[in-house]
Amino acid sequence: MPQKYDEASRPIGVFDSGVGGLTVVKELNKLLPNEKIVYFGDTGRVPYGNKSRETIIHYSLQVAYFLMKKKIKMLVVACNTASSVSLPTLKRHFHIPIIGVIEPGAKTAIETTKTGKIGVIGTLGTVRSNSYKKALKKIKKNVNVLQDPCPLFVHLAEDGWNKNKIAQMVSDEYLKIFEGKGIDTLILGCTHYPLLKDVIQRSVGKKVQLIDSGKETAKEVEQILSKKSLLNPYKMTEKNHSVFYVSDFPHKFKEVSQRFLSKELKHVHKVIL
Amino acid sequence: MPQKYDEASRPIGVFDSGVGGLTVVKELNKLLPNEKIVYFGDTGRVPYGNKSRETIIHYSLQVAYFLMKKKIKMLVVACNTASSVSLPTLKRHFHIPIIGVIEPGAKTAIETTKTGKIGVIGTLGTVRSNSYKKALKKIKKNVNVLQDPCPLFVHLAEDGWNKNKIAQMVSDEYLKIFEGKGIDTLILGCTHYPLLKDVIQRSVGKKVQLIDSGKETAKEVEQILSKKSLLNPYKMTEKNHSVFYVSDFPHKFKEVSQRFLSKELKHVHKVIL
Repeated sequence: MPQKYDEASRPIGVFDSGVGGLTVVKELNKLLPNEKIVYFGDTGRVPYGNKSRETIIHYSLQVAYFLMKKKIKMLVVACNTASSVSLPTLKRHFHIPIIGVIEPGAKTAIETTKTGKIGVIGTLGTVRSNSYKKALKKIKKNVNVLQDPCPLFVHLAEDGWNKNKIAQMVSDEYLKIFEGKGIDTLILGCTHYPLLKDVIQRSVGKKVQLIDSGKETAKEVEQILSKKSLLNPYKMTEKNHSVFYVSDFPHKFKEVSQRFLSKELKHVHKVIL
Repeated sequence: MPQKYDEASRPIGVFDSGVGGLTVVKELNKLLPNEKIVYFGDTGRVPYGNKSRETIIHYSLQVAYFLMKKKIKMLVVACNTASSVSLPTLKRHFHIPIIGVIEPGAKTAIETTKTGKIGVIGTLGTVRSNSYKKALKKIKKNVNVLQDPCPLFVHLAEDGWNKNKIAQMVSDEYLKIFEGKGIDTLILGCTHYPLLKDVIQRSVGKKVQLIDSGKETAKEVEQILSKKSLLNPYKMTEKNHSVFYVSDFPHKFKEVSQRFLSKELKHVHKVIL
């Protein structure tokens, strides 16, 4: 087997603080059905959004080392908080392609906006890091960015309260900050938020385009692998499939993960880092 | 110095998944101003309420070993989730007095109720463990217990959304389950919930007595130490004071901890377990 073929047949590593990153896996599966995924969800320490920079970097390195041992060809940090905080450190430590969800989301938002006014919502960690703002301004200097942390959204999504009256009220309360500000594009800067898409859309009105960073990240993965000739030429088989690792099996894990992946999660193992 | 004096001058260990246990420290300080506290808040892995039994026990043992090395004379598990799940294991491992917040809360609820119908609210972990129900039925067999998990309350309290309209709506939505059920006593089965006391009281009506488990636990600590002649005969000094350990310093830590303790938190150190 030529060396390149061997490398291309390796899995893609996907890392998230919990189950939210499964929304990125879902998009990867759609776009790249041949690609094996090795996923790590840090369910034993979730959420990252309310932890310090130092702790988030420490946890991210632990998870990345674990995934590197699985011989991944590329690493996707499918958690906005970890992408915001840990990406530079991870890129210094490891020499495979590493991408987060921030830049792909920012790129699409710039392509989408007509008013040049973009809203960003995410966890406290993501918003405080200003990483979307920086990524957006790097592409287009004079873009106008308005950010707002929505910490309760994660818990609403995980508890399955993503479509009820309370979800709508919480959403309206958080997003009223954007009223009359002229934004026409809103980045869903957390992998949990696509589950609240309907209530968010109602809060900001139909005219605002929602950008799902996870979806854009999957497209970016395809482009990078294609450019580097690393797309897997082999089909997945019964013996050669995606594997999912978690640091805890919380109650309702199956139900919650199914909600995020839109199918049953198979081959799941618990590991302690 | 007689041996008993030496033992009595040791600190009380208080353990919580995060800052919620500071509400118990506040009550201990009020009742027992001579007692030094060594507190551990597992802020790097908070919350426990959404983790599995196995993981909660693993974390609890790690924290308890850390506190034992600080030569504590007694351990207070000031987290309802950890009390519900880890207490039997902790009692098997260590031979100092160990109490949780469940039994003191249950005892007072039984003394308070006239209708014999008691409501319990807590995290998913606490409610699923049925620990309040078991503790209540152990004291009075024919008591009627109605439980309801309120997972969002923790996040509302930590985000400072404990008195606004959303908090009231979430509370009304959770607590409508108790309507017309005849409960006259409601146990606040999570150390975060006393911060939401006002909205909870409005949801269930004035006639329902709220039981703050943390407050009742402080009374129990006093009784145990007094019975065992372990009350500290010495006053705290500048050099000999309470110490607080956390596994992370999240953003707004100072502000949030102040909200729970009602005063500034001094002598705080970060440790990685």
